[in-house]
Formats: sequence, structure tokens, C-alpha cells
Amino acid sequence: MKIYGDSKSGNCYKLKLVCTNLGLDYTWVELDILKKETQTSDFLSKNPNGKIPIIELSSGEVLTESNAILNYIADNTALLPSEPLNRAKVLQWQFFEQYSHEPNIAVARFIEKYLGLPEERRSEYKQKQIAGYKALDIMEEHLSKNLFFVNNNYSIADISLYAYTHVADEGGIDLSPYPHIQHWLQQVEQQPGYCSMYE
Amino acid sequence: MKIYGDSKSGNCYKLKLVCTNLGLDYTWVELDILKKETQTSDFLSKNPNGKIPIIELSSGEVLTESNAILNYIADNTALLPSEPLNRAKVLQWQFFEQYSHEPNIAVARFIEKYLGLPEERRSEYKQKQIAGYKALDIMEEHLSKNLFFVNNNYSIADISLYAYTHVADEGGIDLSPYPHIQHWLQQVEQQPGYCSMYE
Ligand SMILES: N[C@@H](CCC(=O)N[C@@H](CS)C(=O)NCC(=O)O)C(=O)O
Ligand SMILES: N[C@@H](CCC(=O)N[C@@H](CS)C(=O)NCC(=O)O)C(=O)O
Repeated sequence: MKIYGDSKSGNCYKLKLVCTNLGLDYTWVELDILKKETQTSDFLSKNPNGKIPIIELSSGEVLTESNAILNYIADNTALLPSEPLNRAKVLQWQFFEQYSHEPNIAVARFIEKYLGLPEERRSEYKQKQIAGYKALDIMEEHLSKNLFFVNNNYSIADISLYAYTHVADEGGIDLSPYPHIQHWLQQVEQQPGYCSMYE
Repeated sequence: MKIYGDSKSGNCYKLKLVCTNLGLDYTWVELDILKKETQTSDFLSKNPNGKIPIIELSSGEVLTESNAILNYIADNTALLPSEPLNRAKVLQWQFFEQYSHEPNIAVARFIEKYLGLPEERRSEYKQKQIAGYKALDIMEEHLSKNLFFVNNNYSIADISLYAYTHVADEGGIDLSPYPHIQHWLQQVEQQPGYCSMYE
């Protein structure tokens, strides 16, 4: 399996983490978003949406969207429950991540870490932080009663939400008011095969 | 099964359509977003994110996020392939919908149809349309070579993308440059058990 990704991207890191958790081999093809390496005609022929991560299978088939890829890789493993309602709850948290969490927390981080917080994006940055805190409030509430997101077991729902939560400070977001999130981050970091984002 | 939804919302309509396609019974509980009926303490106890649709099962369990709910309802039916790669491709298109399609096309429609296109949101409206056309370009390209989104069969990926595409004109988005999308919309409308959004 070939993964095309940018090492600084949380969406791409999700795939690295699921592979090391499961002990799976992969080939990493590094692309630099800021150098527009996802906008070349070669890459657009693989993903017309010009986004990473993607995976390419030995058959030549391509799969896009980080969370769809997680479901594909983790199918039939302990990281994805097979019981229908729990499986749907994994998806529930992953859609929450892509709709209410990532577009705020990852974008605040992008504006600060990648772009250096330019003046003309400061008001957007503030708005993204406010909406990001709202997503964190929902996670904190859930984690005050549960060890992990689904069925008290570590799953790909945790991987999806961990990716940008654990680097939220790089978008100026302060996790100190969130003790349960902090405890959960540590639990994720203690899972077998954990690898850090920048290693 | 109880569905809490707003009849004007495409995310809620997805659930109505999957139920009529599959011939399933449900109870619809109508909530009005503009009257903030998703922000009452009663509703927030069901979904702390304050969003519809949600479903409530006879066990009292709640599931949120339209596309997660579609996967739950369509599991083991012809609308959700069981073959792993095709199943992941359904998710791929559903995450595309939630990340690159709905936040643009549904929001342009919300600004025009619900809010009456107020002056202070016109520049956002224009930006949402531009990004919406980009999502439609990707769909058009795919549909120029495929009858439906996954494996040439009608699935919940089509339901997810149909919901806001077929009312894109209500957000000032013109579908006339997209013949393959138009043809696909008609194919969806010919599926057994199709119901229109406003009926
Ligand atoms: N919904 C997508 C989002 C992927 C995404 O936004 N990727 C960013 C990097 S984190 C990207 O490729 N940006 C380049 C671009 O859009 O041009 C996923 O979950 O995979
Ligand atoms: N990602 C969610 C989005 C749901 C959503 O944004 N729902 C809107 C109506 S279309 C809503 O409830 N808005 C009320 C609010 O956010 O206060 C899904 O797919 O279910």
C-alpha cells in the first residue's frame, strides 16, 4: 500500500498512526501542500479534488478521504467494531470530526503554523478558534463519562479525533480547561504501536 | 425509529429518502432550525452539537450525523455494498460530500433561501458558490464515466450527494453546464420508493 501524504498534516498522520497501531507496512510518498504538489496534473489524475491523504493499492485503485481510508484499513480489526450500532457510532464521530472539528481546529493551525498568522486572516483565525472550542466542549463532555469515543474501546474514531486535537495548541487553542481530553490523549499515546506525528 | 428533522434541510431529507427507498416506517419529529428548536436543553441532551438530523431508537439510543445514520439504516441492504473497497468508496464520497460539497452548496442555499441573501453575507455567498462549482466539476467528471457514484449501482453515496445537488439552484448555483449530473439526478428520481423533498 502506498500512502501519499504531507508529514505536517493531521489528516495524513491518521493513516500513519492506524498502520503503526496495526503493525502494517506501507510506502510513504511525501508531497508538500505549500509547494502545490497536490495540484500537479499527475496528482489530480489520482484525486481530482487535489487533496491528501490518498492511498494507492497494488491493483492501482485509489481511495481518498482520510476517514474512509481508516475504515478500509481497520475493517475486521479491533480498531473497528463489527456490531452495527457501534460501527455507526464510529462514523458519527468521524463525521463530527470532518464537519465540526477539523474545519475549525485544523484551519486555525494551518493559518498559524503554515501561513504564519497573516494580518488579513486574523479574524477568520479567531472565529475558527471559537468554533474549535465548541467542538472540544462536546468531546470533553463525552470523555467525562467514557474512556474512548465508542464503547469504551480505542478505535479509529479516536484516531480521527486525536490527529488535530493533540496539536490544537499549534492553532493557539488551549487544552488546559479540558482535563478529560488531556487524559484521553495520554490513553491514545499508550496504545501498542503508537507513533508520534513528527517522528 | 424516530427521526428529528427540519423538512427544508437536505441533511434531514437524506433519511426520509433512504427510508422510502427501503420501504421502512419511521416517525418524523419536525423541528424548526430558525426557531432554534435544536438549541433547547431537551434537544441538546440528545445531541450536544445541536444539529439535526438525529435518530432515536426504541432502546433510547441516539445516533447523530446524517451520513452515519444512512450507513446504519442501509447496512445489509442493496443500498450499501458489503465488498470492502466498494463500501469504503461509499464513505469516500460521503466524506467528500460533508467536506467539499455540503459546506459550500448547502450554505449558499441557506444564505439565500433561509436568510434572504442579506447584504453582509454576499461575499461569503459568492465564495461558497465558487467552491460549490468545484465540487460539481468533480462529480460531473466522475458521472461522465459512471452511472452512479459507486460500482455503477445506486447507493447511499448517491443519496448523500443528491440531497443538496438537486436543490443547488436555491443557492443560485446553475446546473445547466452539468449534463451528466442532470442525467444522474433523473436516475435517482426513478429509483423505487423515491420521494421528493417537499412532499
Ligand atoms: N476531507 C479530506 C481533507 C483533506 C485535506 O484537506 N487535505 C489537505 C492537507 S491536510 C490538502 O491536501 N490540502 C491541499 C489542497 O486542498 O490544495 C480528508 O479527510 O482527507
Ligand atoms: N454534519 C451534520 C450537519 C447537520 C447540520 O448542519 N444540520 C443543520 C440543519 S441542515 C442544523 O441542525 N443546524 C442547526 C444548528 O447548527 O444550530 C450532518 O450531516 O448531520
